[in-house]
Amino acid sequence: MIKVVILGAGNVATHFFKAFKKAKNVEVIQVYNRSEASLEVFKSNTQTTSDLAQLKNADVFLVCIKDDAIEALISKLSQLSHLDGIVAHSSGSVPLSASAKRNAVFYPLQTFSKQTEVNFKEIPICIETSAAKDFPVLKQLAHSISEKVFEISSEQRKKLHLAAVFACNFSNYMYSIAEDLCNQNEVPFEVLSALIKETAQKATLHSPKSVQTGPAKRNDQATIKQHLAQLNNADYKEIYKLLTQSIIQQDGKKL
Amino acid sequence: MIKVVILGAGNVATHFFKAFKKAKNVEVIQVYNRSEASLEVFKSNTQTTSDLAQLKNADVFLVCIKDDAIEALISKLSQLSHLDGIVAHSSGSVPLSASAKRNAVFYPLQTFSKQTEVNFKEIPICIETSAAKDFPVLKQLAHSISEKVFEISSEQRKKLHLAAVFACNFSNYMYSIAEDLCNQNEVPFEVLSALIKETAQKATLHSPKSVQTGPAKRNDQATIKQHLAQLNNADYKEIYKLLTQSIIQQDGKKL
Repeated sequence: MIKVVILGAGNVATHFFKAFKKAKNVEVIQVYNRSEASLEVFKSNTQTTSDLAQLKNADVFLVCIKDDAIEALISKLSQLSHLDGIVAHSSGSVPLSASAKRNAVFYPLQTFSKQTEVNFKEIPICIETSAAKDFPVLKQLAHSISEKVFEISSEQRKKLHLAAVFACNFSNYMYSIAEDLCNQNEVPFEVLSALIKETAQKATLHSPKSVQTGPAKRNDQATIKQHLAQLNNADYKEIYKLLTQSIIQQDGKKL
Repeated sequence: MIKVVILGAGNVATHFFKAFKKAKNVEVIQVYNRSEASLEVFKSNTQTTSDLAQLKNADVFLVCIKDDAIEALISKLSQLSHLDGIVAHSSGSVPLSASAKRNAVFYPLQTFSKQTEVNFKEIPICIETSAAKDFPVLKQLAHSISEKVFEISSEQRKKLHLAAVFACNFSNYMYSIAEDLCNQNEVPFEVLSALIKETAQKATLHSPKSVQTGPAKRNDQATIKQHLAQLNNADYKEIYKLLTQSIIQQDGKKL
């Protein structure tokens, strides 16, 4: 049985709490939060506290709070001599802390909103531990809720964050431009829904490079020219040109 | 009962045939193809021919062949005096033909591969008819297999094609860059799968503009600077800069 104390009462903390409750061999023995009010929802299910001195000892202390408050809280925990468990934070962008003796990262790569139920099985959990001996415990904890567990170093996590900007933020901006073009021409954006979902599905099943299609991929200059002529937003035109050029060049390199 | 003759025996023709077979009030009375060999698979289910003179008359002739052969075939059909049905092609990029008296477009906005089973219910069908009186028949035919039926003019179809380049081809290229960054840093691209699918899902449920996230959206210059420093591929750097700039500017306009 892995004993866990969750620190924090926001979205991530709440989703973890629910998931661990259903998991075998994991017990959340306490939830800590600075403000008492946010602890209400946990009270019927576990012990809670807003006083760090009252923390119970556990195998894992899971710190699910805002990025800029993590280091300070971990530092405080390390001064509490009655605690000797692993201290893991759940942030994608905060590096492994130097404050705790047994520090770790337990980072679920997904956006959470309070309303939506989450199927943790599918959510990748990226773990890292300062001490090699702590790795198996965190791995077991991650596997208790998710089928996708990855060992990712702080350095890799930085690159992963950068990759996610392209894969998610920038792909969403492409959808957004498409939506704008649809609106301008009174075409319901909904017409593209199935294709957008299929494209994402395909890219994750295969390698996106191998399923690239479109005028740039075919180096179909006639269509590219037509498309550029149709675009009257200077930004969109620049983006179309640059991406088309880059796809054509990438392909050239392969030949 | 709508009587349909399908012309062509490729992916689109095959998927339509299967879908209409399950549909109520639709009967595919014949499949035509130039080469006899490809007709084999249809023979146990309907009448087939490779001779245009042998075509039966129908309510709708559905032309599902390569773009550059469509106009020639429609022209031939219009010379066959025993045929007086609607002639609809299934292409996204070929305009409404001038050859046939009753021309139309019946365009399923999805990529088909022969192996994968298709759930037509979710696939948008874009229809257009040269004669207003032919519209209800095509609409009924489209609704017999899909819940998503849209009236889209040739002009709108052109813009839709352009929007799809952004929404699908370019978003896939974003995935592809992410994959490349992952490979360079020995991070399994699979870690991003859930996030990619969730992003596509979110964008189609809401408006992509309203769910835009990331450093550009937050105008988080510290992170943007860090990311640019990490990118050593000149193309990727240019793309990161341009898209970030564009997202920031778009946002500025809203304020």
